[in-house]
Amino acid sequence: MAGKRVKAAFDVRMRGFADRVPVAEALRWIDAQAQRSGAEEIAVASAAGRVLAAPVVARVDLPPEDRAAIDGFAVHAAATLGASDYDPVVLKPAEAAGPLIPGSAAMLAAGRALPAGADAVVPFELAQAKGESIEVFGPVAEGAGILRRGQDIRAGAALFDAGRRVRPGDVGLLAAFGIERIGVVRRPLVRLVVAGAKDGAPDADGPLLHSLVARDGGITESLVSDVAEEAELAAAIAAPGADVVLVAGRSGTGGDDVAALALAKIGDLAIHGVALRPGGSTGMGSVGAVPVILLPGEPLACLAAYELFAGRLIRLCGGRDAAFPHRTCEAELSGKIAATIGLVEFRPVRIAVGPVAAPLAVPDGGGLATLREADGFVLVPAALEGYAVGAPVRVRLYGEEAQP
Amino acid sequence: MAGKRVKAAFDVRMRGFADRVPVAEALRWIDAQAQRSGAEEIAVASAAGRVLAAPVVARVDLPPEDRAAIDGFAVHAAATLGASDYDPVVLKPAEAAGPLIPGSAAMLAAGRALPAGADAVVPFELAQAKGESIEVFGPVAEGAGILRRGQDIRAGAALFDAGRRVRPGDVGLLAAFGIERIGVVRRPLVRLVVAGAKDGAPDADGPLLHSLVARDGGITESLVSDVAEEAELAAAIAAPGADVVLVAGRSGTGGDDVAALALAKIGDLAIHGVALRPGGSTGMGSVGAVPVILLPGEPLACLAAYELFAGRLIRLCGGRDAAFPHRTCEAELSGKIAATIGLVEFRPVRIAVGPVAAPLAVPDGGGLATLREADGFVLVPAALEGYAVGAPVRVRLYGEEAQP
Repeated sequence: MAGKRVKAAFDVRMRGFADRVPVAEALRWIDAQAQRSGAEEIAVASAAGRVLAAPVVARVDLPPEDRAAIDGFAVHAAATLGASDYDPVVLKPAEAAGPLIPGSAAMLAAGRALPAGADAVVPFELAQAKGESIEVFGPVAEGAGILRRGQDIRAGAALFDAGRRVRPGDVGLLAAFGIERIGVVRRPLVRLVVAGAKDGAPDADGPLLHSLVARDGGITESLVSDVAEEAELAAAIAAPGADVVLVAGRSGTGGDDVAALALAKIGDLAIHGVALRPGGSTGMGSVGAVPVILLPGEPLACLAAYELFAGRLIRLCGGRDAAFPHRTCEAELSGKIAATIGLVEFRPVRIAVGPVAAPLAVPDGGGLATLREADGFVLVPAALEGYAVGAPVRVRLYGEEAQP
Repeated sequence: MAGKRVKAAFDVRMRGFADRVPVAEALRWIDAQAQRSGAEEIAVASAAGRVLAAPVVARVDLPPEDRAAIDGFAVHAAATLGASDYDPVVLKPAEAAGPLIPGSAAMLAAGRALPAGADAVVPFELAQAKGESIEVFGPVAEGAGILRRGQDIRAGAALFDAGRRVRPGDVGLLAAFGIERIGVVRRPLVRLVVAGAKDGAPDADGPLLHSLVARDGGITESLVSDVAEEAELAAAIAAPGADVVLVAGRSGTGGDDVAALALAKIGDLAIHGVALRPGGSTGMGSVGAVPVILLPGEPLACLAAYELFAGRLIRLCGGRDAAFPHRTCEAELSGKIAATIGLVEFRPVRIAVGPVAAPLAVPDGGGLATLREADGFVLVPAALEGYAVGAPVRVRLYGEEAQP
């Protein structure tokens, strides 16, 4: 990275950020750093939401033989010609097994193999057993009520590409082929290091990040809380076992904000300070091959930085689409959003009918209330000074994320 | 239910359905039958996606005291008047604790309690410690860099209503209040009874339904496979422990289709045969207070009947919105969909750019291929004969469901 050594060497404590890395550059770093996890084999029944590690090909024809598509009587279609309510065609019950003899009909449940020779199935609505014979009250065409071997899917056909996010219907199809286990991309293991909540206040970031990581397909490897000193922090970051480490807190310019120093000491600090508001104290780096994201401790800033950077990293490691997982809607702004050119502004909004998006107030260092009121967020691109009242904006909606 | 006794008494085997219950009537039955599960207490950190069982009220002010919103020096704002790069105001470091004495400044990290008397925080970008003094290079207004007690949320404010689906941000907010456990609606326990796969074919319905139940917030209580005889089926349905029972297979008109008879013998069979295609052999009833849905065995019909009826029941039992969980898009049909007046048609479609929706072929008793190709489905209302080419339709998208 250009500028990496400069940023790693610069101690922002009690001085402030000399400059901030543009969000687009930080995203390029994320994309370059993300390594897709390896594969693991799991039960097909539990594969919904997971990402296929390899393509899947049909191993057999579906159905594997000609079958009754409906409940009824297997017949020779030609024998039913001219049948009517008033003049039923009368057939004999077929032998239990073997090919269908002309003039006979074999009772069959949907899904059962068709007897040889039969070329149609008459539904019970059109045929009734009566004593020792079967009366057919209407004609059926050849092929009616039948599913041909391979009609659904032929052996050798590609079922799914690698990278597909498995849907419930896919699970049904894979199971129909008798596939019981399947290779999927392993969920990334994410360590959460909460770097010393201030004044013994309850920790909001740990639970918040745990929920977000789960949404994006990761697993919390461990939650290390209340780590405040630089050496402790460095040890928590560097311990083996995680695919990604997220540190919340101690990323800023305060005298005790040692997260960046701790990372720089044991690994590489590639970026510290990004042009995002809130979330400007975000840092990024790595220890060996493990990416480490330093998130602000203030919960709304932590959320913003997670959404912009950490979530993307975790989705990519898990083989998912890098894009935001939120549903979106277009809305008209009911209040202006002031922003600074060069900074990406993350602004929670509340949606009302229209749809209208009302920007919520985010005081410096605050904004917890928006976690209650927000229905989603708007991003103001770095190139804009904000949005005027009435501007059409794209809102990314909370609570409507794609399923894990 | 009107017609209940008639339907319960009517054996459709080898005769066919005499009539079918309209989908709208079956949905009313589902809504009347659904009972919201009771509450359970769980860790807040794991509550995302769950439904709050009771309203939540703020117990304390957030923040609980006046705080530094940014890293910097707490000051009396009036003392910084006239400060500039060329003519800095010089202040003394404050004592470690106690109120701020005029002419002094206290270094403070964002989130820490403000010393009494201080009314602004100067960021490090505007103030630097220099030897035994602190130089301030610009003026700050009263209140700058400060978060007032209760500014985010006041004690007593309503945080969330009962019934809210918890979002990751909500988890952060609840944790910020020190709330560690919370009451949520218990996930409904769903028993899956797969009623005898035909000819030893692999079971697609069990894994399919397990995935769908999880999507809709239920838990598979047990999966009972390969039950074929009426008595076995009745026992599997009637065993205690489940909130909802789904039976897949043996719901139709074949000689061995004993699911409806089994249910009628041990409970109430309210509906058998609905005006839905595929999925017309769906049945509904109950054993005591436990609703039982009989789904067709053919996987696509099973999926259709699940989507229309069982999914709604499970969502309601779990306190979720009854509506379909799928994202939707408007698309133009690239092929016609023929349907029958009086029947709701469930038709899988493939989406192409436009967006254009191509209806997929669903042969009688088949349609497994659509589980590979479909991007979603279209429902043709019972009042229509279908949709013409070019008709605008609303597609419910697979793989884009709201998160559990």
